[in-house]
Amino acid sequence: MDESFVPFGGIQKDLKGRLLCYKQDWTGGFKAGFRILAPTTYIFFASAIPVISFGEQLERNTDGVLTAVQTLASTALCGIIHSIIGGQPLLILGVAEPTVIMYTFMFNFAKDRPDLGRNLFLAWTGWVCVWTSALLFLLAILGACSIINRFTRLAGELFGLLIAMLFMQQAIKGLVDEFSIPMGENPKLIEYIPSWRFANGMFALVLSFGLMLTALRSRKARSWRYGSGCLRGLIADYGVPLLVLVWTAVSYIPSGSIPHGIPRRLFSPNPWSRSAYENWTVIKEMLDVPVLYIIGAFIPATMIAVLYYFDHSVASQLAQQKEFNLRKPPSFHYDLLLLGFLTLLCGLIGIPPSNGVIPQSPMHTKSLATLKHQLLRNRLVATARESIRMNSSLGQFYGNMQEAYRQMQTPLVYQESSARGLKELKESTIQAAASMGHIGAPVDETIFDVEKEIDDLLPVEVKEQRLSNLLQAMMVGGCVAAMPILKMIPTSVLWGYFAFMAIESLPGNQFWERILLMFTAPSRRYKVLEEYHATFVETVPFKTVAVFTIFQTAYLLICFGITWIPIAGVLFPLMIMLLVPVRQYILPRIFKGAHLQDLDAAEYEESPALPFNLAVETELGSGASFAREGEILDEIVTRSRGEVRHVCSPKVTSSTATPARDPASMKSPGHSAYSPGVSGLRGERSPRIGEIRPSNLGRSPSSSNSK
Amino acid sequence: MDESFVPFGGIQKDLKGRLLCYKQDWTGGFKAGFRILAPTTYIFFASAIPVISFGEQLERNTDGVLTAVQTLASTALCGIIHSIIGGQPLLILGVAEPTVIMYTFMFNFAKDRPDLGRNLFLAWTGWVCVWTSALLFLLAILGACSIINRFTRLAGELFGLLIAMLFMQQAIKGLVDEFSIPMGENPKLIEYIPSWRFANGMFALVLSFGLMLTALRSRKARSWRYGSGCLRGLIADYGVPLLVLVWTAVSYIPSGSIPHGIPRRLFSPNPWSRSAYENWTVIKEMLDVPVLYIIGAFIPATMIAVLYYFDHSVASQLAQQKEFNLRKPPSFHYDLLLLGFLTLLCGLIGIPPSNGVIPQSPMHTKSLATLKHQLLRNRLVATARESIRMNSSLGQFYGNMQEAYRQMQTPLVYQESSARGLKELKESTIQAAASMGHIGAPVDETIFDVEKEIDDLLPVEVKEQRLSNLLQAMMVGGCVAAMPILKMIPTSVLWGYFAFMAIESLPGNQFWERILLMFTAPSRRYKVLEEYHATFVETVPFKTVAVFTIFQTAYLLICFGITWIPIAGVLFPLMIMLLVPVRQYILPRIFKGAHLQDLDAAEYEESPALPFNLAVETELGSGASFAREGEILDEIVTRSRGEVRHVCSPKVTSSTATPARDPASMKSPGHSAYSPGVSGLRGERSPRIGEIRPSNLGRSPSSSNSK
Repeated sequence: MDESFVPFGGIQKDLKGRLLCYKQDWTGGFKAGFRILAPTTYIFFASAIPVISFGEQLERNTDGVLTAVQTLASTALCGIIHSIIGGQPLLILGVAEPTVIMYTFMFNFAKDRPDLGRNLFLAWTGWVCVWTSALLFLLAILGACSIINRFTRLAGELFGLLIAMLFMQQAIKGLVDEFSIPMGENPKLIEYIPSWRFANGMFALVLSFGLMLTALRSRKARSWRYGSGCLRGLIADYGVPLLVLVWTAVSYIPSGSIPHGIPRRLFSPNPWSRSAYENWTVIKEMLDVPVLYIIGAFIPATMIAVLYYFDHSVASQLAQQKEFNLRKPPSFHYDLLLLGFLTLLCGLIGIPPSNGVIPQSPMHTKSLATLKHQLLRNRLVATARESIRMNSSLGQFYGNMQEAYRQMQTPLVYQESSARGLKELKESTIQAAASMGHIGAPVDETIFDVEKEIDDLLPVEVKEQRLSNLLQAMMVGGCVAAMPILKMIPTSVLWGYFAFMAIESLPGNQFWERILLMFTAPSRRYKVLEEYHATFVETVPFKTVAVFTIFQTAYLLICFGITWIPIAGVLFPLMIMLLVPVRQYILPRIFKGAHLQDLDAAEYEESPALPFNLAVETELGSGASFAREGEILDEIVTRSRGEVRHVCSPKVTSSTATPARDPASMKSPGHSAYSPGVSGLRGERSPRIGEIRPSNLGRSPSSSNSK
Repeated sequence: MDESFVPFGGIQKDLKGRLLCYKQDWTGGFKAGFRILAPTTYIFFASAIPVISFGEQLERNTDGVLTAVQTLASTALCGIIHSIIGGQPLLILGVAEPTVIMYTFMFNFAKDRPDLGRNLFLAWTGWVCVWTSALLFLLAILGACSIINRFTRLAGELFGLLIAMLFMQQAIKGLVDEFSIPMGENPKLIEYIPSWRFANGMFALVLSFGLMLTALRSRKARSWRYGSGCLRGLIADYGVPLLVLVWTAVSYIPSGSIPHGIPRRLFSPNPWSRSAYENWTVIKEMLDVPVLYIIGAFIPATMIAVLYYFDHSVASQLAQQKEFNLRKPPSFHYDLLLLGFLTLLCGLIGIPPSNGVIPQSPMHTKSLATLKHQLLRNRLVATARESIRMNSSLGQFYGNMQEAYRQMQTPLVYQESSARGLKELKESTIQAAASMGHIGAPVDETIFDVEKEIDDLLPVEVKEQRLSNLLQAMMVGGCVAAMPILKMIPTSVLWGYFAFMAIESLPGNQFWERILLMFTAPSRRYKVLEEYHATFVETVPFKTVAVFTIFQTAYLLICFGITWIPIAGVLFPLMIMLLVPVRQYILPRIFKGAHLQDLDAAEYEESPALPFNLAVETELGSGASFAREGEILDEIVTRSRGEVRHVCSPKVTSSTATPARDPASMKSPGHSAYSPGVSGLRGERSPRIGEIRPSNLGRSPSSSNSK
């Protein structure tokens, strides 16, 4: 638990760790081939669309000094640099809402100052960025990120849900505005007469709900029953982008009969016009800023620095949760340092800086987990089929599998984990064979249902590489050029997309699942146990869970309320920082240690043996560790791609068939708690409750340092 | 297979049969208590809403001579009379689309005739009704309905799907019209300027889709996880009516800012005004009609007679499908006779006559099946709990159950069937006990999971009574008085409801399920086998199923095309009648007998032993018959109430656990064909494919006569 505050210590460790795998970061990416495009486009849209609408916001708030062109440029620039020389390539950078709020505030401050005003605004923000970067350097060098490991699931998931709420709020606000005259517009225009405004609002409702509902469905395409497999895969991978196009097309259907301004579409300057670039030479004007203001710039700088330090680290951490079994080391300290440079750069060329964003970063990791899963799966299935055709015995069979699996491994530091998957593959299916008396006989599909088995046996692995991040950043850059085309997208489709993102970020968030559990009818709670569910569902009394959840919800609402405070609102992250001491010193007095451990594991509390794990161990032997991962994998895959499968390997099933056969047992938690296989048998449903293994929210710098 | 064409023969049998249970028809209804209101309101809306919109249609087409007031009056009047002195109380009467088309045609003919014209139109239709009723009497007396037993699932389901298509077409047409100026309206009105028209159209989209989507969800409420049980039940029972209110309320939200005519609402005359009644004295004018027209009235009369004979009988038959295990006899001949009287009556008071309607009639039976299921269930669960509390042995246990079950039975003709449920209850659970070595020991919930077991063991039973029909008819009558309130409902909500009804009528229609099967990816077809599915899925080669379905689809499209022909269109039922000879003489040449039997069982072909049944019999003993019913029950309950349960009694499961444990087997039809329990284990999903037992579409008069 060493929190190394040795100057440069953290940065050194980070660099060392990442350099080890730098080459593989690229080769791995290219090996994935065209498939890398699925997560890439997925993330590209997830990061481009909000950035565009934030740009629109900024444009209205700064009289057009800053526009979507600048926000996109910043996102692309920082993204490209970070993906190439950054530490953690899973981290997605972008211009976020808090930045927009800060810049709005600064503009309102600057524009009324005679000796500053609209013209020197960007020069002044240049100075703010200078100070900010200085502070970030300081924090990075002093290893401030080490504190992040005190930061538990409690805070992380609360933050995640808060962001989801802000996105949803944005979507609703946007929809409501569709009914009224946008500020700074000429009310005389035909499209602003009451009838057309109402028509526009209703049209917006249709478009946004259309996009949201269809997009949510498309994510589940892999589990559809109709259409060919590849078509389903295509829809699941590229459905959302396609639907944005589809609904944009729909918005043009009634174009004949209605005025040009309906439905409202993105409004942004032509990036090819001279004006769009005048601000890029801001550095020349920076010395014209009065000294007083140069010093005064320190005040907003501190706020922004705190904001970025926090957002950046948390986004990075959420992108590296334990469940993903990342093989490559994190890099909090170094990334913060780099963020400092990026902020400086953006400031000097007069564009708003970017930082790590939520939920895009975790979305990125999830989509890569699916990708890796598919790659591994295809390879192993092929091998298995091969050896079955050659009707090799179990021995040879696993020889081949081992080989194939090893070849797919990223040759890296933490080898012990990479070996795991296989041991289980072997044990589980030997058990299966034994249970059906096939030992020695050639393997065939009846004892080894290749596709399913392999799906279930594969541990979660993430295709950790830099290519997807680089490509998506470049695509965002392309958006600047494509602005004239982007302008065809109706704003209402944007709002629909915001709502979609908010909803997509919910499943798997234990906080959210607990809230749902509160509303679950007692008579139906047993259903939760039939599905993939977190340990606390079984080990913690419902009342305790309720109290914990209500506390967390209250805290969430307070944070949400704070975001409404005019300027101090941007500092809501401080509220979440405050959760660290609350969690460490207050909660332990209210809740039992074991319960707290299950609800919100913290590294600095050593974890007691968990009844569930014990149960599984005794019952399933070493298969347990796999069983868990199987479910985690399944769950992550489900979350990120909507594929619905069920973990039901012969081993698990056979050991739990009896309780499964006894209907009564379905209702007793005690029973099904010891039979993960039940969920398999009953399975074929999308898992809903979070990870089965309580785990720290993510990997902390110190924990990685200690390795 | 006697088709008794003895004059009055059929009518006599019908009367005798129904008189036997007439008293019970009422007592049974009242015994059900307030719960009877669930099916009642459900059917009330299902029959009132279309009647209202048909009335609107009629009003536009007949320059207001006939309005929703008349259609509602006719529906209520005929409904009340039929529910009291009618034969089959499950049959729902109402003014249907074909009637509207015929009346429109007759009006267009009459209004241009100088010696007939608008004034004598109703008097003339009075004569048409006189002729029609005469023809209906003839058909009834000669026992024409006996032919109905040649009428198989092929034709019935095709007809059902055709009706669904017509409803959906109506919904779409209605929505499209929301964008344009309704005929006969003054285009000068503010709400008809382009902008408001567009706004109205978009608003209509929101309202109709809102109603459709929410209504479909509400039907599934019983399987929701959130909210208390009774709340879920309430939503499932009364959700759709409530949602009509909710969306009507929504339509008033923007009322402040927009003109009065947006969104468009029902437009109907005030029933309290004198004018609404002038047509009720039409009988006085009937003698003013020139003789030539009185004779000419015979021509439309024949068309209407054929139409009613067919619609009425088919509606009645679809309401009495074998799967419902009705205990009380059908009454085709007598009901047709009564329909003759009703038509005469309506004609003489100048309102359009009603006849048996689809899909309302089958919907009615289904909702009553659920009701009966709930009543039985509650009673038995109580008894079981009681005896468990008293630690009674298996013997006493079943003694009590027997007793309770018998008390719930309708004391009626077909006793052998009513005894069934119990034998199985006993056998199955004794098997269960044996399989867990509990014989002799006191029963407890571990070997007998009361609620589930009873759910699964109960055969489908329908609460056959007259009360629900009477009440819904009276409610429809109440609508006439409530017209001023009904006028608040937006037309778009109506269109949404039409779409909802069309979709609700699909599940369980084997024809529809086969169409879906065509589009199911081969790799996913095994999923169909994991669910409740019709025999043909296992016994008939896919290719054959495909050919059969494509033929049926082509035929459906032809029928659908015919409905577009101006006037002859109303005779599309003849096309469906034509299916009888096609099925009897042509299909047997194309398809193997056994296959045809599974795809479309016909009474006049004796059915070959079915592999599936054999399998079950041998494997499960007499439990089989229950097993089938369990699934049918489940399926019907699911269809009519959306409750999702799984049939998984210990007996079935234990006998099939092995295949269930072997994942590979899931993919081989042969395997799961013999293990209905598998669907239970995997279950927990809403059954989608039709009945497991191939059965004649419904009970035919002759078959009942032969009893």
